[in-house]
Amino acid sequence: MIVESSLTETRRHVRSARRAGRVVGFVPTMGALHPGHVSLIEAARRDCDFVVASIFVNPTQFGPQEDFSRYPRMLEADLKMCRDAGADLVLTPDVSAMYPESAQTIVRVTKLAQVLEGAHRPGHFDGVSTVVTKLFNIAEPNRAYFGQKDYQQQLLIRQMTADLDLPIEIVTCPTLREADGLAMSSRNRYLSTIERGRATHIFQALQLASQFAAESNRTPPEIAQEMRDYLNSVGGIDVQYAVIADRATLEPLTERASSAVALIAAKVGTTRLIDNQILQFR
Amino acid sequence: MIVESSLTETRRHVRSARRAGRVVGFVPTMGALHPGHVSLIEAARRDCDFVVASIFVNPTQFGPQEDFSRYPRMLEADLKMCRDAGADLVLTPDVSAMYPESAQTIVRVTKLAQVLEGAHRPGHFDGVSTVVTKLFNIAEPNRAYFGQKDYQQQLLIRQMTADLDLPIEIVTCPTLREADGLAMSSRNRYLSTIERGRATHIFQALQLASQFAAESNRTPPEIAQEMRDYLNSVGGIDVQYAVIADRATLEPLTERASSAVALIAAKVGTTRLIDNQILQFR
Repeated sequence: MIVESSLTETRRHVRSARRAGRVVGFVPTMGALHPGHVSLIEAARRDCDFVVASIFVNPTQFGPQEDFSRYPRMLEADLKMCRDAGADLVLTPDVSAMYPESAQTIVRVTKLAQVLEGAHRPGHFDGVSTVVTKLFNIAEPNRAYFGQKDYQQQLLIRQMTADLDLPIEIVTCPTLREADGLAMSSRNRYLSTIERGRATHIFQALQLASQFAAESNRTPPEIAQEMRDYLNSVGGIDVQYAVIADRATLEPLTERASSAVALIAAKVGTTRLIDNQILQFR
Repeated sequence: MIVESSLTETRRHVRSARRAGRVVGFVPTMGALHPGHVSLIEAARRDCDFVVASIFVNPTQFGPQEDFSRYPRMLEADLKMCRDAGADLVLTPDVSAMYPESAQTIVRVTKLAQVLEGAHRPGHFDGVSTVVTKLFNIAEPNRAYFGQKDYQQQLLIRQMTADLDLPIEIVTCPTLREADGLAMSSRNRYLSTIERGRATHIFQALQLASQFAAESNRTPPEIAQEMRDYLNSVGGIDVQYAVIADRATLEPLTERASSAVALIAAKVGTTRLIDNQILQFR
């Protein structure tokens, strides 16, 4: 496995692979890898001939009050996981290479970036769409892999890729969960034991929504209210949003449809967690 | 010469050329071609093995009060000029293919897009940087050619290309001029005979600035004032700006440097014209 901090060298390796007719798969990450990331690299390994992962804690997608400086960094462990999962090359660029002082271009997805995560984290998605555009242009993959856990993010990346005519197929892979249902996340390691116990109720609330959709006649706003009531009843969970939305536009659903997505963001202690689940209505 | 409205087919042709080891040159235009455009295609022809031009009057770079609807469209004449200049493929996409209703992504260069043309044409450069990013991703060139006549535009494209890590070399070609010095522009055809006579004074003002820089000790603000005074003395010319600026940042120069760029935008009748010239200070 090649570990490369140079953007130019990474491009050279990828181009050489593509010239040899190999299909290139790409998994961008911020490191602090967990089995969810591993499953993305494994999916790329199954589909593609040359697998590139990147590890870059992207400063522009963190707000000024957010956890950029304390975001977990553990390069050696991450590289081992990449190697074990079958990556061929891991790009580990410096912030100064990605954002020289002269940089002044942003890629902005307008509508999709304004709701839910975008409303709660101003500027977050500008940072995401800009860095992913850059990484796509450096790694020039045929396919790129994202987790469903960041549902809005994968929608945004799909939109951006289509809108900018990037010749890349976006693949979304299922959320990986702990035994009690908590979605795997690099931020779970911030949780104390008590908080970790509370956090599982986010998954429980999504399960409740799933059940109400499949087995009751409740409307989406009623189901969303059930999720909020459930989470508020637990205690120690600060719900930022809990909604039932259109799967493509993320607009809140007022009427039952054939399917929808339930999305939750909540703070448990100082740790902000998100999760989501596709709902099928009966 | 291939004439192609399909984005997918264009990409297929270019990829096949690149796979065969050919260097791809690209000249994006809005049609209404004149010898300035021809010189860009000819430059690409000299440097590259496969030359792509595009003809697309990009709606998103026109303001609501601007000349999008009356912008000259003359596809057959344009195609003949592309053929004669040696283009291999001309992309002529529909607006609906470039901007499906669902589109919601913009590429924004922040600082460079705010001054001069950007200040006078709000949103203009968002339209330019977005469409050029799209066209770059469709035509996947090794090199792309722009005219110095749109000085700020070529700076902006260089910035965007670097910031988004697009693997494309930007080539800027000299402004072509009519016999009396007027910079060639698709918009010159809007001018009445009287206006056409007045328009040449924009070039004269730049010549004056060039002379003052080379042969006097005047400061950049003094030279800019000379340009404005000169243009105002002609009559029938509404100066929007006439400045001496840093060649890279476009910030107005207060002190003499080794070189600079003089930039003018002026309305002659209802026609808005721009021109510029590099100044060497003595």
